[in-house]
Amino acid sequence: MKLTINRSIFLNELSTVQRAISSKTTIPILTGVKLALSNDGLSLTGSNADISIETVLSNTNTKAEMLIERTGAVVLPSRFFGEIIRKLPESVFTLEVLPSNEAIITSGAARFTINGLSADNYPHLPIVDENNQLKISVRVLNKMIAETGFAVSMQESRPILTGVHFVLKHANLLAVATDSHRLSQRNIPMESGAEGFDIVVPGKSLLELSRSFKDEEEEVEISIMENQVLFKTKTMYFYSRLLEGKYPDTDRLIPNNFGTEIQFSVPKLLAAIERASLLSHEGRNNIVKLSIDSNKAIISGNSPEIGNVKEELTYLSLNGEPLEISFNPDYMKDALKAFGGIDVVVKFISPVRPFTLEPVDNSISFIQLITPVRTT
Amino acid sequence: MKLTINRSIFLNELSTVQRAISSKTTIPILTGVKLALSNDGLSLTGSNADISIETVLSNTNTKAEMLIERTGAVVLPSRFFGEIIRKLPESVFTLEVLPSNEAIITSGAARFTINGLSADNYPHLPIVDENNQLKISVRVLNKMIAETGFAVSMQESRPILTGVHFVLKHANLLAVATDSHRLSQRNIPMESGAEGFDIVVPGKSLLELSRSFKDEEEEVEISIMENQVLFKTKTMYFYSRLLEGKYPDTDRLIPNNFGTEIQFSVPKLLAAIERASLLSHEGRNNIVKLSIDSNKAIISGNSPEIGNVKEELTYLSLNGEPLEISFNPDYMKDALKAFGGIDVVVKFISPVRPFTLEPVDNSISFIQLITPVRTT
Repeated sequence: MKLTINRSIFLNELSTVQRAISSKTTIPILTGVKLALSNDGLSLTGSNADISIETVLSNTNTKAEMLIERTGAVVLPSRFFGEIIRKLPESVFTLEVLPSNEAIITSGAARFTINGLSADNYPHLPIVDENNQLKISVRVLNKMIAETGFAVSMQESRPILTGVHFVLKHANLLAVATDSHRLSQRNIPMESGAEGFDIVVPGKSLLELSRSFKDEEEEVEISIMENQVLFKTKTMYFYSRLLEGKYPDTDRLIPNNFGTEIQFSVPKLLAAIERASLLSHEGRNNIVKLSIDSNKAIISGNSPEIGNVKEELTYLSLNGEPLEISFNPDYMKDALKAFGGIDVVVKFISPVRPFTLEPVDNSISFIQLITPVRTT
Repeated sequence: MKLTINRSIFLNELSTVQRAISSKTTIPILTGVKLALSNDGLSLTGSNADISIETVLSNTNTKAEMLIERTGAVVLPSRFFGEIIRKLPESVFTLEVLPSNEAIITSGAARFTINGLSADNYPHLPIVDENNQLKISVRVLNKMIAETGFAVSMQESRPILTGVHFVLKHANLLAVATDSHRLSQRNIPMESGAEGFDIVVPGKSLLELSRSFKDEEEEVEISIMENQVLFKTKTMYFYSRLLEGKYPDTDRLIPNNFGTEIQFSVPKLLAAIERASLLSHEGRNNIVKLSIDSNKAIISGNSPEIGNVKEELTYLSLNGEPLEISFNPDYMKDALKAFGGIDVVVKFISPVRPFTLEPVDNSISFIQLITPVRTT
């Protein structure tokens, strides 16, 4: 293959597929990036055990200044190749691959020769049934991921909990994640039409997916294969493996009778929780206490060897029974960050039962659950 | 003690002294920051085995909004205390220290109580003879440190080489550093008057010193004690221990007869060296080769398992004998970065003798030396 191309456009594509490439893989060829040049354009592929990313740069993209002299394919060492391209002197470079898979990179007076591998040895990506696709806005999908992905488990002891459970049914897309200490669930109405599905996508894959979307992408098509999901935009194919096994039934976890309800502005509550958590992080038990009586809400933390903290919280409204409840402030911080700058209502049953957080105006069907810590 | 003070002004002072505070110290009280409040203002102190920093915030500084209610002193856990102050809700806070050394920090509705230690147990800083001082501009001292500090040894096998050698003699301040593979030497004329000295200051201390100067500081006074040096500005006392032992005689290392001289623009040469070093960093030997003949200079690198690189260099002038010489490109990069955007002349004797780099216009008395790598 032989190609001349704009350096910064190429680097953009490369950094997208590099998200899928790990230097720690046990399959040596996967430390490389695959380049495949056809008369239509250039595709780059990166892959690891969990995700594969393929980008497509069309020869109709004039910013890419592509000059395709000879089609072909090669696998080049990803990190090293990227460092070379980053440091080249001119705004364009030429890549020529010899039949020996040696790649010659020239730009200005600089000339690099690096050893590549045959693209024939690169693993094939799954083949997708393009008939069964769900279309969704990139913005909405990213929001769903941000609202649930943080709540997946980081422990491999129950692998299924390291993923986000997505269910498409009755023109509704549900996303839910829980690490068994807290839960976050979001529902979004969908246009009917696509066939239903019930999948669990690894939280790490979703995080990389979110980071891989280009700003100009508006829509993504989701296709499910046997044990893979494909997220496809105009310029990118993002594959992730699915987690196998049955996701626990989370519906029954969400309570609906409460004794105490209190409304907060999220940024104000978050700042107070962050202050209280400074102390809890220093101490042995990472917990803070919320004490609610008829007209006061106080957050406090105490760690005899370190000190203590106390702050009266500013709330918007307060109803119900007095309550003292202790919890891990980090769960509360994560939950509040997922809401953004809105007002939320926190609803309690008792000091030993999970409490919920929802937007005050819950037209958006978003609920979070946090399990308290028993202190007595 | 009891004090109300502007939060961001206080944090500025605290982050300066925190440069000297390590959480890894074997002396527990040194993980703390000492606060001492007099009617003149507030002083903060941080210290480790190598450096101590004391800042002074005068009560005449109106931006500090200081309200001194009761003088006194305490030692508080540095990192934790700093995190608390950073997260407080209002622009000012109040710190009250009880006789038990408990510190109560209040700001808005937030109230922290943290356990402190008695300031009586904090080590005393050296007492300085203020009669024997060298005054020097902060800008000039910072430049000297940047021009030499990078060349100190990182190996503890010859501790003396981990410092920069400063000699004040005959109205000239010399700074020189070498790790035995490369050397950087800078001379600066001084007004006569101060007593001469000959000291070796740890490179790490100088780096922290450079970072600790505030932008508004113009002049620093250098005082030498038995085994300490004090750098004093209007708002900061920076103490460093000195390295003991005799610094090697570096004068005799600098050659003065050369067979080949070539002039470069530093940014252009640096970019080419950085490209060549990409390859040398991947290979087993971190070396590049410079080949000079009557009208060409080529930089190249070769690593059979990885590939090779070759680039014809743009030079300003070239005189003398053809030459092939190999060297560690990282030493060359460091040297070039210390020159900045100027033109330099590189002078060679032979492939096995150290070569020098100097500004083309060497009115500023700056010379660097790099030892080549024998390849045959």
